[in-house]
Amino acid sequence: MSGPGGPVVGMIGAGQLARMTQQAAIALGVELRVLAGSRDESAARVVADVRLGDHRDLSDLRDFAKGCDAVTFDHEHVPTEHIEALLADGFAVHPGAEALVHAQDKAVMRERLTAIGAPCPAWRRVATAADVEGFAADHGWPVVLKAVRGGYDGRGVWICRSAADAAEVLASGVPLLAEAFVPFERELAVLVARSPHGQGVSYPVVETVQRDGICVEVLAPAPGLDPEAAAAAQRIALGIAKDLGVTGLLAVEMFATASGLVVNELAMRPHNSGHWTIEGARTSQFEQHLRAVLDLPLGSPAPTAPVVVMANLLGGEDPDVFSRYEHVMAHDPGIKVHFYGKEVRPGRKIGHVTALGTDLGEVRARARHAAVYLCEGTYT
Amino acid sequence: MSGPGGPVVGMIGAGQLARMTQQAAIALGVELRVLAGSRDESAARVVADVRLGDHRDLSDLRDFAKGCDAVTFDHEHVPTEHIEALLADGFAVHPGAEALVHAQDKAVMRERLTAIGAPCPAWRRVATAADVEGFAADHGWPVVLKAVRGGYDGRGVWICRSAADAAEVLASGVPLLAEAFVPFERELAVLVARSPHGQGVSYPVVETVQRDGICVEVLAPAPGLDPEAAAAAQRIALGIAKDLGVTGLLAVEMFATASGLVVNELAMRPHNSGHWTIEGARTSQFEQHLRAVLDLPLGSPAPTAPVVVMANLLGGEDPDVFSRYEHVMAHDPGIKVHFYGKEVRPGRKIGHVTALGTDLGEVRARARHAAVYLCEGTYT
Repeated sequence: MSGPGGPVVGMIGAGQLARMTQQAAIALGVELRVLAGSRDESAARVVADVRLGDHRDLSDLRDFAKGCDAVTFDHEHVPTEHIEALLADGFAVHPGAEALVHAQDKAVMRERLTAIGAPCPAWRRVATAADVEGFAADHGWPVVLKAVRGGYDGRGVWICRSAADAAEVLASGVPLLAEAFVPFERELAVLVARSPHGQGVSYPVVETVQRDGICVEVLAPAPGLDPEAAAAAQRIALGIAKDLGVTGLLAVEMFATASGLVVNELAMRPHNSGHWTIEGARTSQFEQHLRAVLDLPLGSPAPTAPVVVMANLLGGEDPDVFSRYEHVMAHDPGIKVHFYGKEVRPGRKIGHVTALGTDLGEVRARARHAAVYLCEGTYT
Repeated sequence: MSGPGGPVVGMIGAGQLARMTQQAAIALGVELRVLAGSRDESAARVVADVRLGDHRDLSDLRDFAKGCDAVTFDHEHVPTEHIEALLADGFAVHPGAEALVHAQDKAVMRERLTAIGAPCPAWRRVATAADVEGFAADHGWPVVLKAVRGGYDGRGVWICRSAADAAEVLASGVPLLAEAFVPFERELAVLVARSPHGQGVSYPVVETVQRDGICVEVLAPAPGLDPEAAAAAQRIALGIAKDLGVTGLLAVEMFATASGLVVNELAMRPHNSGHWTIEGARTSQFEQHLRAVLDLPLGSPAPTAPVVVMANLLGGEDPDVFSRYEHVMAHDPGIKVHFYGKEVRPGRKIGHVTALGTDLGEVRARARHAAVYLCEGTYT
């Protein structure tokens, strides 16, 4: 490992996940390099070593990877074959292509999870109206159609209540799979880390609250979750990480149903459901990811407070969020504000706030107040 | 305040204090700009907006300050008259020249502290052997001689046990003051913040442990400190901040003696005695400093754990600290490591570690084990 700056980790992508990874890299003495499309991107604004390039271009990726002790990802959009090429070149890419494909391709993910016995909803690849209607005949409406690749934050997911709904989605021509609609009680997420050595750790199970398919709030730990159910969720996530050979972080989004847990989605990178760990866990997910991809011993996932609530900041009509810092900081000297340095657009994730304490109702109200005021300039 | 990146804070100097300020700036969406002598400096390695220049050159300082919402300092070595010039230009410089001079010039500091009634040792400006002998006649040996300007980390401080010792120091020709030697029981430090609005907050009083004039360990809160003595120390520090018109952070180093507290040194910037706040307080000193210089409401200084111990990492003989991460992280998954990206030289501050917990003995042993192993590769 080189020079006073320590090991070099290259992160492909320069969004807010890379930005927050920089905070952890600074402490560890890790030199973070990002591959950005422009110097205005969230992480490019806060990192010294910014390489401009296209994550879909193998030659850009090769130039980027040179000199990195580990290469990892801010997003899942790097073509699988390019990752295979980097690995063949001898670069240490974490997670590797064989693992990451399960976070890139939902059909591959469902096949594999089914094979290893992880709890999934009924699912099937579909291409035609007849396929969807056949699936609905077996499992009923609504049918959830998902783009096999490229969806995020609720995009690429359609809840179809009829053949007419499905026809509209099919008309787009994107490869799809159908899943049975899961009548869930709430959504949970489990964040685990696994290193190339095979060490694994799990953070406490959290509850995620979504609005219009976008996570708006994370409650850590998941309120009132039975300890056995929590342990079962952690076992599922650690088992998936091991069976898929994940290196780095794995976020497993789950539905809690009356009859148990069902895996919804996988992500193999720092994840929105883990932003609470920056202040709320002894080791933040960003530090944990760096430790994992460098094959260092993993850090303690122990919580630092009984209750932690993270609320996302979704851009409102008035872009001048900074003018609203004064009220929020004066109102609550303990609130932690995180801005991503992104242009404010309505509905866009532009930051998050975290509140810590002992009483869920109070902590949640604090986080919500700060989030609503920062985004909208109104009180809750 | 401008663009998606938020307010711009310019920090003159690019050492580890600016480096750690970047972690806080990232969260707040503050764009941190640093004035560095080279791109290899600690903070220049982790900041996007690095300006190369000389902090003693007014024209470099003026170029640097343009476009900054606030200008502040990583160190105290900017000539006072240059700071006055920047203020006259209309730049928002925090702390201002009138306050900062008390952290730059120990004679000015002693005059002022004496005038406002803050507890000081007996002191006098001295220029000749006769001056020192006269001072010794009044206050006894040893006499502490201090360089009026430019000292840090024990440099510029000489404990003279005789006229012969003093003669050696006087021969250097630097302007000096003499202070009575304080037979202290231990050293304490109080870190406070004050905003241009006049809001002030104080962190818990800590004990600092020095070796050869360099801080090696900070215990937060100061073990066994009587609550009234702690409140008195905080009152002294907040009073100095107010009376001197400090904006930003003020660290007040004190001696605890059998007859009460004595102020030793002042610093007006993030301070080594406050590194524990990164994980150990709800608002880190670095975030607090940014909030203060931007005149935002100050954050909660509440501790996040009953006991926090910070141990400095002083370079040892073997520079390859990164090879020793594995043991330290495997041994203690809760230890927090901070490296400054500086070339390792024996005795140089290259980083610090922080341990948090409930039992002082155990937490201190954890911090010490990690620090000794990282620096020396040996066990304690």
